[in-house]
Amino acid sequence: MGVNLLVAHGGGPTPVINSSLQGVIEGAREGGRVQKLYAARFGAEGLLKADLIDLTDLSPTQVALLDQTPASAIGSCRRKLGEDDYPALLECFRKYHIDVFLYNGGNDSMDTCLKISRLARREGLELMVLGIPKTIDNDLAETDHSPGYGSAARYAAVSAAELALDVQALPIHVVVLELMGRNAGWLTAASAFAGRLTGCPQLTYLPERPLDEGRMLADVERLYAKGGGLLVTVSEGLRGPDGRPLSDSGIVDGFGHTVPGGTAQAVAERITGALGLKARAEKPGLLGRTSMPYVSRTDREEAYTAGRFAVEAALRGESGSMVSIRAHRGEKYRFSLELVPLEKVANVEKSFPAEWIGEGTVEPAFFDYCAPLMGAALPHFAKLR
Amino acid sequence: MGVNLLVAHGGGPTPVINSSLQGVIEGAREGGRVQKLYAARFGAEGLLKADLIDLTDLSPTQVALLDQTPASAIGSCRRKLGEDDYPALLECFRKYHIDVFLYNGGNDSMDTCLKISRLARREGLELMVLGIPKTIDNDLAETDHSPGYGSAARYAAVSAAELALDVQALPIHVVVLELMGRNAGWLTAASAFAGRLTGCPQLTYLPERPLDEGRMLADVERLYAKGGGLLVTVSEGLRGPDGRPLSDSGIVDGFGHTVPGGTAQAVAERITGALGLKARAEKPGLLGRTSMPYVSRTDREEAYTAGRFAVEAALRGESGSMVSIRAHRGEKYRFSLELVPLEKVANVEKSFPAEWIGEGTVEPAFFDYCAPLMGAALPHFAKLR
Repeated sequence: MGVNLLVAHGGGPTPVINSSLQGVIEGAREGGRVQKLYAARFGAEGLLKADLIDLTDLSPTQVALLDQTPASAIGSCRRKLGEDDYPALLECFRKYHIDVFLYNGGNDSMDTCLKISRLARREGLELMVLGIPKTIDNDLAETDHSPGYGSAARYAAVSAAELALDVQALPIHVVVLELMGRNAGWLTAASAFAGRLTGCPQLTYLPERPLDEGRMLADVERLYAKGGGLLVTVSEGLRGPDGRPLSDSGIVDGFGHTVPGGTAQAVAERITGALGLKARAEKPGLLGRTSMPYVSRTDREEAYTAGRFAVEAALRGESGSMVSIRAHRGEKYRFSLELVPLEKVANVEKSFPAEWIGEGTVEPAFFDYCAPLMGAALPHFAKLR
Repeated sequence: MGVNLLVAHGGGPTPVINSSLQGVIEGAREGGRVQKLYAARFGAEGLLKADLIDLTDLSPTQVALLDQTPASAIGSCRRKLGEDDYPALLECFRKYHIDVFLYNGGNDSMDTCLKISRLARREGLELMVLGIPKTIDNDLAETDHSPGYGSAARYAAVSAAELALDVQALPIHVVVLELMGRNAGWLTAASAFAGRLTGCPQLTYLPERPLDEGRMLADVERLYAKGGGLLVTVSEGLRGPDGRPLSDSGIVDGFGHTVPGGTAQAVAERITGALGLKARAEKPGLLGRTSMPYVSRTDREEAYTAGRFAVEAALRGESGSMVSIRAHRGEKYRFSLELVPLEKVANVEKSFPAEWIGEGTVEPAFFDYCAPLMGAALPHFAKLR
């Protein structure tokens, strides 16, 4: 009798979540122990409705396309599961004789994973439950970083650098760039590579530290006066000293989180209002997690390997854990994978270290941490002026 | 006696303006006729101050990096030249014994080019003046399209498609994407490839046609109700029936143009306000002209070749013209270059054909026009759901 495997995605996609799926598929095909491989259509929604996609015989072409496909190829959802939902999940596992459940997601999903794992044990269901980490926000605990972060960081770093060159070439305005991350500054911090890559004056503001507006305006005025252009990068979740987001769209998502909108626009308007400088705001938003040409090869490899590793671990009988990345930052970057208990991960937010936040900047220790995650050499640019 | 050549950039950069510069440099190095090759630092600003960069002996490494470098490697400006400025330009040409002046820019720059050409003739200055076309907006007349457009169109098409996959994978909101182009809909039209590439329901609104808000809301409601997600792409310059931009940042640039800000945000707020649907807005803004990984190879090749062609034409004694692209849309796309009189180009805006604009969509003739300009095959995505 072979093993039946079910994989699901939870929460917002990353540029490499489908690489983890590719790893799961290829891992399941090896060794001949997996009989059926299913995916839940639209994450928890699919589990609740027992709406599964049979990936057992997915064509090699489709498998190969996965690592070039953004978003989630099997769909995801933001539905927060309540106690009442769990019986339907068990029903789905029983109906399809699922032996292994792999859930690829962030904090909320790891909490779901833990609850399913406990419930299955209580109900006498033989179900191996493992989490595969994923978040562009990099706020998952007990792992050096999460698959998805390296690519989103590369997007933040390289596209901010490209923008910085535009600012320097045509220094007619202060440009404010907004990056995702409501509570976690990891992504916005990566944008601080722009100044290093281009020499463009830059200010960077993370959501962990309330914005001192007077100081920001003084810094903008001073740096802009030098004449070489100025790039300001801000987190979408940037808050004022009163703790309120600088801009609030009034939109609330399925988890009850407020969706901020126009933080960069708000900062640009303050710069123009207070200093009379022309300022414009850019907000790529979701493009920061969908753009495939900026994918980090290291991130893609880690995501793929995490998927395979989860399958192998489950087939060995492991359960109740999340795959975790251990980083080896030597001469040449290497990574290895291990398992950590879901209890230590569920609902814990890994914050950006306070000691890495400078005034309008990020400390060098962060750059050492982040650089290898963004993959192969960052681009080089011509310098003629 | 060799020939002295001066190249300058005007207006906003494109992702391939440095490829044209590369073409100019390599063209000037061939045949041994060019003695000195200069570039004006920051466009007209550099001409007025006779502030030139000597590129004659630029290292091969720097030349090679040019086609991977966004923005303008020699700088540009938005200064609108007045009658009083022209004597200083001639002074600069005389001081450096310039025989050939190549100006790479859009409508405004071609007007400047024409004026310099006439003035030089009037003043008895032997100066060959040629324009190299460049604009992501694609609004230059007398050329099938302009270098820069193909890459910006590819950015619009592919990043909208990547976003559409995210919308489909997690259909919790209407996503509104804003693209550059104050008056010209060429770029926004390219974003309409997203629906074709992904099957995602999409609505696209160009600046040439005033938005019928009631009709848009009805279409949004109808398409969203199908449950597969909805992507709305809008031009930054989208106007209401009263002719006023949907969103106006209040910022005015050096040419007296108003810089719009937050058109997508305004549309998202109307959708949420009128229909109660969650909506979010993305505005990559300048990233649409700085992102190198989305460069179209065809566009890069055309930009490079246009630069070389301009040098060769000038050395043959041509003057008072702009390089123009003739497109051959056969089985396999080909292009050829020719010269058109600056008189026919200066200050003329090529509008998006009215007959290519549908209601919330773009007609198939546009896709046939645009597809080959975006270069090699567009990405393929896995389809599992």
